[in-house]
Amino acid sequence: MQTLHDLVTHFLQDVYYAERQLLKALPKMAKSAQSPALKAAFTAHCEETVHQVERLEQVFEHLGLRAKAVPCEAIKGLIEETEEVIADTEIGPVRDAGLAACGQAVEHYEMARYGSLIAWAEALGHKDVVALLRATLDEEKKADKLLNELALKRIIKTASATAKAA
Amino acid sequence: MQTLHDLVTHFLQDVYYAERQLLKALPKMAKSAQSPALKAAFTAHCEETVHQVERLEQVFEHLGLRAKAVPCEAIKGLIEETEEVIADTEIGPVRDAGLAACGQAVEHYEMARYGSLIAWAEALGHKDVVALLRATLDEEKKADKLLNELALKRIIKTASATAKAA
Repeated sequence: MQTLHDLVTHFLQDVYYAERQLLKALPKMAKSAQSPALKAAFTAHCEETVHQVERLEQVFEHLGLRAKAVPCEAIKGLIEETEEVIADTEIGPVRDAGLAACGQAVEHYEMARYGSLIAWAEALGHKDVVALLRATLDEEKKADKLLNELALKRIIKTASATAKAA
Repeated sequence: MQTLHDLVTHFLQDVYYAERQLLKALPKMAKSAQSPALKAAFTAHCEETVHQVERLEQVFEHLGLRAKAVPCEAIKGLIEETEEVIADTEIGPVRDAGLAACGQAVEHYEMARYGSLIAWAEALGHKDVVALLRATLDEEKKADKLLNELALKRIIKTASATAKAA
């Protein structure tokens, strides 16, 4: 990678891989959750992710690149941690608290990646690309906020009651 | 993991592992950067990380737990991506842009983890633990902000000039 364009290309391929892995992970997270609100949040974000993948394909096209995914070790690790939480808990509020936290970690990763990509695309004068990436960044921020609200308002309260009862 | 206390314990062990891995990764990042300001930011954050590790040890003590690290796949992935950027670039502004982005991804991961831990510790009534974790969360947020400012003000401008010259 010798230019900022090369860096944009690499990180686009990385986040394209990440979003496509999330298309598989989010339905499992929805299925493993007990709280109907948390299930709905994961399902809704999975539907958004379909559009985020499409937006990335449009970004590749704008830049004259073929849409390509390169393995992203960070998302692999984040998904592996989510699977550990599912494996090490039973269905219920403690697993839900863990799942919401893992979901927020994924959103934070994506916020960092899209934030950098937007700054680089702006510096290179790719206005259309910036608009596409910004639309996705806004969705990731909202998804994180929703998971945080669900966790603080309901899930953690239920989980801490279970802790006291145990 | 059956209670919220178990979840707190697991995620503390996870973030304890992550911080200790960062003690090794941050000096490499500082060494690989060209920008003196970016080098200084990584070095300063490494010094903060020493205190963050100590704070986590105090948290374990408050909770009557032995300080223990469990492998955290997410931080392994994030560090692996940073090493890829270093391997695939030469010293200069493009690598610096990539390193700042990788640093921000790490900070975002930590913000998500500490955010969840604080919410859980609050629900369980561990006020001293909350104060310790909040001090670290504030440092992670500041570190992310500084990397973002460095990237936007200087690094990306230099990197995009290189892109045009290439």
